[in-house]
Amino acid sequence: MDLLSIKDPSFLKSLSNEELVELSADIRRFLVEKTSVTGGHIGPNLGVVELTIALHKEFDSPKDKIIWDVGHQSYVHKILTGRAKDFDTLKKYKGLCGFPKMVESEHDVWETGHSSTSLSAAMGMAAARDIKQEQSYILPVIGDGALTGGMALEALNHIGDEKKDMIVILNDNEMSIAPNVGALHSVLGRLRTDGKYNRAKDELEWLLKKIPAVGGKLAATAERLKDSLKYALVSGMFFEELGFTYLGPVDGHNYEDLFENFRYAKKIKGPVLLHVITKKGKGYTPAETDTTGNWHGTGPYKIETGDFVKSHSNGPAWSSLVSETVRRLARQDERIVAITPAMPVGSKLEGFASEFPERFYDVGIAEQHAATFAAGLATQKMKPFLAIYSTFLQRAYDQVVHDICRQNLNVFIGIDRAGLVGSDGETHQGVFDIAFLRHVPNIVLMMPKDENEGQHMVNTAIQYDDGPIAMRFPRGNGSGVPMDKELKQIPIGSWEVLKEGSDAVILTFGTTIPLAMKAATQLEKEGYSVKVVNARFIKPMDENMLNALLGSKVPILTIEEAVLQGGFGSAVMEHAQEQGFYGAIIDRMGIPDYFIEHGSVDELLEEIHLTAEAAVKKIKRMTPKKQKRA
Amino acid sequence: MDLLSIKDPSFLKSLSNEELVELSADIRRFLVEKTSVTGGHIGPNLGVVELTIALHKEFDSPKDKIIWDVGHQSYVHKILTGRAKDFDTLKKYKGLCGFPKMVESEHDVWETGHSSTSLSAAMGMAAARDIKQEQSYILPVIGDGALTGGMALEALNHIGDEKKDMIVILNDNEMSIAPNVGALHSVLGRLRTDGKYNRAKDELEWLLKKIPAVGGKLAATAERLKDSLKYALVSGMFFEELGFTYLGPVDGHNYEDLFENFRYAKKIKGPVLLHVITKKGKGYTPAETDTTGNWHGTGPYKIETGDFVKSHSNGPAWSSLVSETVRRLARQDERIVAITPAMPVGSKLEGFASEFPERFYDVGIAEQHAATFAAGLATQKMKPFLAIYSTFLQRAYDQVVHDICRQNLNVFIGIDRAGLVGSDGETHQGVFDIAFLRHVPNIVLMMPKDENEGQHMVNTAIQYDDGPIAMRFPRGNGSGVPMDKELKQIPIGSWEVLKEGSDAVILTFGTTIPLAMKAATQLEKEGYSVKVVNARFIKPMDENMLNALLGSKVPILTIEEAVLQGGFGSAVMEHAQEQGFYGAIIDRMGIPDYFIEHGSVDELLEEIHLTAEAAVKKIKRMTPKKQKRA
Repeated sequence: MDLLSIKDPSFLKSLSNEELVELSADIRRFLVEKTSVTGGHIGPNLGVVELTIALHKEFDSPKDKIIWDVGHQSYVHKILTGRAKDFDTLKKYKGLCGFPKMVESEHDVWETGHSSTSLSAAMGMAAARDIKQEQSYILPVIGDGALTGGMALEALNHIGDEKKDMIVILNDNEMSIAPNVGALHSVLGRLRTDGKYNRAKDELEWLLKKIPAVGGKLAATAERLKDSLKYALVSGMFFEELGFTYLGPVDGHNYEDLFENFRYAKKIKGPVLLHVITKKGKGYTPAETDTTGNWHGTGPYKIETGDFVKSHSNGPAWSSLVSETVRRLARQDERIVAITPAMPVGSKLEGFASEFPERFYDVGIAEQHAATFAAGLATQKMKPFLAIYSTFLQRAYDQVVHDICRQNLNVFIGIDRAGLVGSDGETHQGVFDIAFLRHVPNIVLMMPKDENEGQHMVNTAIQYDDGPIAMRFPRGNGSGVPMDKELKQIPIGSWEVLKEGSDAVILTFGTTIPLAMKAATQLEKEGYSVKVVNARFIKPMDENMLNALLGSKVPILTIEEAVLQGGFGSAVMEHAQEQGFYGAIIDRMGIPDYFIEHGSVDELLEEIHLTAEAAVKKIKRMTPKKQKRA
Repeated sequence: MDLLSIKDPSFLKSLSNEELVELSADIRRFLVEKTSVTGGHIGPNLGVVELTIALHKEFDSPKDKIIWDVGHQSYVHKILTGRAKDFDTLKKYKGLCGFPKMVESEHDVWETGHSSTSLSAAMGMAAARDIKQEQSYILPVIGDGALTGGMALEALNHIGDEKKDMIVILNDNEMSIAPNVGALHSVLGRLRTDGKYNRAKDELEWLLKKIPAVGGKLAATAERLKDSLKYALVSGMFFEELGFTYLGPVDGHNYEDLFENFRYAKKIKGPVLLHVITKKGKGYTPAETDTTGNWHGTGPYKIETGDFVKSHSNGPAWSSLVSETVRRLARQDERIVAITPAMPVGSKLEGFASEFPERFYDVGIAEQHAATFAAGLATQKMKPFLAIYSTFLQRAYDQVVHDICRQNLNVFIGIDRAGLVGSDGETHQGVFDIAFLRHVPNIVLMMPKDENEGQHMVNTAIQYDDGPIAMRFPRGNGSGVPMDKELKQIPIGSWEVLKEGSDAVILTFGTTIPLAMKAATQLEKEGYSVKVVNARFIKPMDENMLNALLGSKVPILTIEEAVLQGGFGSAVMEHAQEQGFYGAIIDRMGIPDYFIEHGSVDELLEEIHLTAEAAVKKIKRMTPKKQKRA
């Protein structure tokens, strides 16, 4: 059918199962066609085609609340709620968001991006419904990977206790992004094989039939036994223990099975956990046969071959550079242990994992545990390397404060995807890390100017033995600078002058250095002599250099790809104030005080005026006398 | 015995069980005597006397690692490791810390204060042990309340999967601080009563015996059945499902039982969960019979009667003021729902809970879920009031950013215990909240000057419908100001001049206002005319007033009981910079960049120079010309 003509899911009500199967095929074709051009989370969405269609047919959105955990699997939902026409702009600037978005549709009742929030949201919606004495079905859809996130477990515990009516759809595809880990995963595996418990149950019934009828007592006992055993024996007792009625496992690609179970679940009082088995990438062979996680989210690809369209890049991927340097050092240093919360592929730790399996831990989607697990290792004089995305480190803020920094433990945090990440949008921008780390005592926070300095910083972090040390680095690739063979150490708190100048100075680091250099070059043409400093240590700063700059009364412009409030620029102003440099001319550039949506990083930088042109203007404004000279 | 003579736990090895019982009584007497004077966490410690002694007798600390979750139950451990002599200084400035502290003893292998970290730490220590191929027992001791914290569940999942050798001691006293909630608690309850499963097991065996021997097939089936059933039927299958060997429940006050189980646990490969039942307050009647949580942690009390020594206070407890004002408003406003993560007593929500049981949720120790549950409610146009301590809000940082603020949801966060909390020390100081909230888009952050303004601010927060709003308020009591009958609304972002003056201005809020007023009065005597502003909105600030002040070029001193880096003072400097007020004379007072240990709030303020005297000095330095005039 013409997917572009869909306005809302009501048309589904009249379709037969056969027609739904056709629709599924149409949607799969559409998804592959569109994402092959735009990129996107193709694997997860191909896996939930039937599940999404069935939910929208059987339930009544938006009165019934479908809550997508993580949210990257909401493409089918977007098609069914009238947004097929927008897929050419998927994840593009001002285009369709890759996650649920309330402003796009009333059917998007919850926005996400980070995992494991759906159950808490569902509990809130269920509590509101009951207080208002309304009727509706609450339908969180959560993956087996997201279920191991601490807050999802907290929510399970609360929902099971409160016995709120809701139907939790456990979308079990045996992998979150990478193959799943954790004991809960084993529980699901046992349910999935559908063996042990059901066999035991069958055999018990057979056995009970063999028991001769010996009158009242035995019959009563047998009955009681059946009652208490039933509870223990049916599949899903893990969830039953927590207060849920467990249904499943159900084939998530079979409409009959889905509808039958939905209808049954509707009749049950209290929380239901419906265990649905789906196949990530279903229907598109390259994605369906993927075992690595490479087809979780992709850039553009060739439909026929499944070859990814290579984006041009000069240097190594930052994640590779960092992980491979850690790996290189781990050959000499047996203290090094690498930890990832479910991102072995994204963090490019496959090499480390295969070379040092006993010193590699993928802890699953469990950022809090990952951080404090690292702290535990550090108490024993190990050197943990916690590889984590900036946006997900937010989950471990308290663990960084309370466990790592307060105990001054020697943990190396590699903060990946720092700064704007682009197309994943506001839930994924790594822009808060400086503001939420800078005020934490004991931490060292740094960012390299290029991949060569990056490898030396990794070495510096590993050799550093005085407490926590973190290095932020961007999404994407390095610029292809020559790499030193020998690893060096960079003195903690040292900045580096990249370009001399006397009229003004730009203090910046990492991704905004090219912008600063460009501005300085432009200004030079206009007669301004601008110094550019690689302020690679955000904490501690190079106080000697900063004092000298402040003492010389040269105007200072700080530039950072991070939120302005409480950021690096504020650190410079704080220092100036503390040192009594009243009257210092300091201006700051960075991320303004609103959530930055999706788009290419360049488009976003333009939107927020984090550009060389803006820097040029600011410098000129700060050094008015030069304007005449020029 | 003379507890003061204990140097380390080695003396325990030669004691008989009878002697241990005597020692237990001595320790209980000592604990009650000491904490009746100093105050402290008496209930939890009386509950773990035998458990702690037994651990130190059976295991070999510090080679074996005893890891106290939360850590407030470590007093017995401190006595056994040579610190009885320090108990007169318990929780006092420069005295014995109320939590484990590495600098105090090599037996304190992990520091805490926040709950649910012990299992992650244990996993780290176990991984380090195995990488180094050393031998030791890893012994996290975690309460049943702490077990519901998300990170503890994340860790259980990981430990069960990795099958690391460790003995998790589940110290089950049926309450954390308040009585426990959650489905996991029900699981433990079922294990505790020891009924269902064991009865089923007994009955099954009896039943199996009744089955006539019908030869090979049936016997084999019966055997297989027993195998698969055993797994399902023995107590603790919840933990067994997660990969643990479950032992217990054991009477935690019976040495024989404890030793027997410890010895058995030592022989088991992989993770063991030993379920120990203890009684909080054991041996001291007022604490033992407490069902409210009042004896969890106390101030001084009279041993004979159990009466708490009333501390003199003029005004209502801040927690009461806030919760009771919310309760008052909830009578008119049916949108209001109160949420606490396990602190119904501390947050004084008992009244709200009994009046509006259907609109009150204690979610257990689950700060992340609490915050996102509130967000879920807010999506349905409810008005959730999240009552949470500043230090514990750190756990929900990502939920505040990603779920509440990013979706701009109308949640009211009551940030209790903001600022220095005193005797609980560095893990509990509420000093980071401004720095970790101020940079989050959409949030309103405020702090009242006194309890009358406090009640109006609560009303303001409840009436506010434009997004998240947070009010921080201190530990302790108000100053006893007259209270308005009618609740008012305070314009968002408005500051208030408390005292006029023209030579300098102090911008401050909340607990530091008296300090500012005192400094201004003192300065007046010396000829300085100092304005004092109640800067009650930290975000958004009163930009009109601030611009006028900056325009008048009056020196500005900011004072806050919060970390300086990225704090309110920085916000003022940022604003001055953004508005182009170069040359503004701004100085800042607040919490310096290190973790502030325990002591009375006054002692701590003195230590960090957050005093009226320091303010006087700073103002004088900022306004030198006035010195001559005076």
